[in-house]
Amino acid sequence: MELADRLNRLGTETAFKVSEVAARWASEGHTVYPFHLGDIDLPTPRPIVAGMDRAIADGHTGYCPGAGITPLREAIAADVNAKRGTSYTVDNVTIQPGGKPVITKFLQTVMNPGDEVLFPNPGFPIYESQIEYLGGVGRPYRFVPSQSGFALDLDQLRAQVSPRTRAIIYNDLHNPTGAESTDPERQAVAELAIENDLWVLSDEAYFETRYSGHSKSIASLAGMAERTVILYTFSKRFAMTGWRLGAGITPPPLTDWFSRLNTNNESCTTHFVQYAGLAGLHGDQRQIEQIRSTLQARRDAAYARLSTTPGITLTKPECTFYLYPDVTDAIQLVGANDLTDFADRALSETGCSFCTRNHFGRPLPGEDRQYIRLAYSGLPAEAIAEGLGRLRDWISSAS
Amino acid sequence: MELADRLNRLGTETAFKVSEVAARWASEGHTVYPFHLGDIDLPTPRPIVAGMDRAIADGHTGYCPGAGITPLREAIAADVNAKRGTSYTVDNVTIQPGGKPVITKFLQTVMNPGDEVLFPNPGFPIYESQIEYLGGVGRPYRFVPSQSGFALDLDQLRAQVSPRTRAIIYNDLHNPTGAESTDPERQAVAELAIENDLWVLSDEAYFETRYSGHSKSIASLAGMAERTVILYTFSKRFAMTGWRLGAGITPPPLTDWFSRLNTNNESCTTHFVQYAGLAGLHGDQRQIEQIRSTLQARRDAAYARLSTTPGITLTKPECTFYLYPDVTDAIQLVGANDLTDFADRALSETGCSFCTRNHFGRPLPGEDRQYIRLAYSGLPAEAIAEGLGRLRDWISSAS
Repeated sequence: MELADRLNRLGTETAFKVSEVAARWASEGHTVYPFHLGDIDLPTPRPIVAGMDRAIADGHTGYCPGAGITPLREAIAADVNAKRGTSYTVDNVTIQPGGKPVITKFLQTVMNPGDEVLFPNPGFPIYESQIEYLGGVGRPYRFVPSQSGFALDLDQLRAQVSPRTRAIIYNDLHNPTGAESTDPERQAVAELAIENDLWVLSDEAYFETRYSGHSKSIASLAGMAERTVILYTFSKRFAMTGWRLGAGITPPPLTDWFSRLNTNNESCTTHFVQYAGLAGLHGDQRQIEQIRSTLQARRDAAYARLSTTPGITLTKPECTFYLYPDVTDAIQLVGANDLTDFADRALSETGCSFCTRNHFGRPLPGEDRQYIRLAYSGLPAEAIAEGLGRLRDWISSAS
Repeated sequence: MELADRLNRLGTETAFKVSEVAARWASEGHTVYPFHLGDIDLPTPRPIVAGMDRAIADGHTGYCPGAGITPLREAIAADVNAKRGTSYTVDNVTIQPGGKPVITKFLQTVMNPGDEVLFPNPGFPIYESQIEYLGGVGRPYRFVPSQSGFALDLDQLRAQVSPRTRAIIYNDLHNPTGAESTDPERQAVAELAIENDLWVLSDEAYFETRYSGHSKSIASLAGMAERTVILYTFSKRFAMTGWRLGAGITPPPLTDWFSRLNTNNESCTTHFVQYAGLAGLHGDQRQIEQIRSTLQARRDAAYARLSTTPGITLTKPECTFYLYPDVTDAIQLVGANDLTDFADRALSETGCSFCTRNHFGRPLPGEDRQYIRLAYSGLPAEAIAEGLGRLRDWISSAS
């Protein structure tokens, strides 16, 4: 039986392979420090669970409208406006089962086969997978090291634009680097979008996951709201990754299409989970603040070990829950053949499991430094200190 | 800003429009008897909710594998095998957020643009919408009245097959007619699929919703398991429509692709909801049996009124929760202009809100009888008797 040709263009998140290898190593009796998955091991705050329980008791176990329940759509619009200085209403919001569906629906609604879409590389691998799966042509844009972490290579980004370019995927507060745009950089991306009449997907999954300062949205810049779709998710902020709750914030013509795609693909997002989201936005914020302070302590524990490890250099991001160290010299020190060999040996020598740059897109010409990504959201600070202490000992003893 | 061309091919469920009209009528202070939506107003059985609560307490609020949790995949394989005489394993099961995603994923994995796909008309409108949206060509096949309800017009079905035909969507236990294949009819569909090397989507959403006899699956017939995808859902059987829990039962090459599509589109189905499904399959079945007996009493209440209404003829299906009466003569009796006018006037004259044949696909040439679809799953037997009593009075007084 033949399969459809489009499957040849479907990518995936190869990070799940790292999970499998780590699970196998653990099943053989070894201690594993799981830095590979961008998941959160903290319980979802009780008020959120209680909001769901009330909704079930109230009988909200049947279908709801494809676009989601009105109170949650309103609450999300208010939340986005309060944090971003925008002026969205319920008519800009469709509830989605997580953030990922917003990527797919954005591309389905704005990109024709053959259109080009700019996407960050390194970056979340589903961008490129979905661009190509839906028949588009992905044009990667790159980052360069900067004093504060990483910056967009704006000249390279501009050089990627062609008459076929239809959209840009922009992930300020960036996975995997933890980088954040400066105001001028964000403005430059906005200008590029306006000058070339591009749609913008602003992936704001980590908008609330930050430890100092304030996040900003490209959607709040002049001329941008009408061309920008915001990917909004409850996953990271509320420790709700497995709940599958997010939203697309869309200019009006797209809202109706997102809603119709919901009707076609999902019927609706789990009904009572939407009331849980409402409880998260409206309820007691203390446990939610606790999530952030816990993550901050973990970041500090991870940074303290890594920044004192020979052969490793890194900056300390104020957002996301990732560190993205340059391990080029460490690879030399331990005598690893390459980045993948370094990761394999780190697991077997120290139990530390992590992704590498290669899990976030095909390396671009001219990249001469090697990076790994550590997610510090999935294990306690003590385990972080222990695991990265072992990593430091391993590299130190080789140097 | 231009939108993607594919949106011009995206259909929807127009039944939601009926909901809106009914809600408006109710908001003006009128009593509405909601027969339009295939939803269930019964609470989800407590053991299922308790299974979810335990999963949350156990910390299952993070991501799980894209294909779903292994115990639920195993339990579904066992359930399918026990009811259908098949021999599936965990490797044939991917958990999905409801039944609808199985339609989309089936077409994405087996149909190329330009391929033809056979689908039932009248039928669930998302079949045709997704065939066309994904670039295929839908070929409707029709039903003819039979002594027991409706039968496939097998000659017309066979005449729809061409060298471009890639797949057939088959919905035994059929929405909207409530029809069920005889053994020879099911065998004929299987032979047509085998002779023409077609993929089969067997939509078995109503497999467990029946009041006498036993459901059978086309997947259990010789030579069929390797070409059939079963749409499996918890929605109707367990009164879990708003929970969004289903599964694709696939031959091995498709399982991996369904799983990869999950990783791209949904990450996973809501993690703890999967444990709720496990509790539904393994737990106390008394409340679940109660759902079925309640639906049966509703069917009997609806049938008793409709079968004694002038101008209306219908059979009494032993499965699904739909009645599909022929109202051709009733339209004449009340002096309605057409089927849509009949439905509009029924709402304003009696409060009964229902879908018509036109909500289930474009009528085919030669259709000379007019039908409506009544879902009896969304209101108590007393309300059914009252509402359809009013409908009977309205038509009787006009005749």
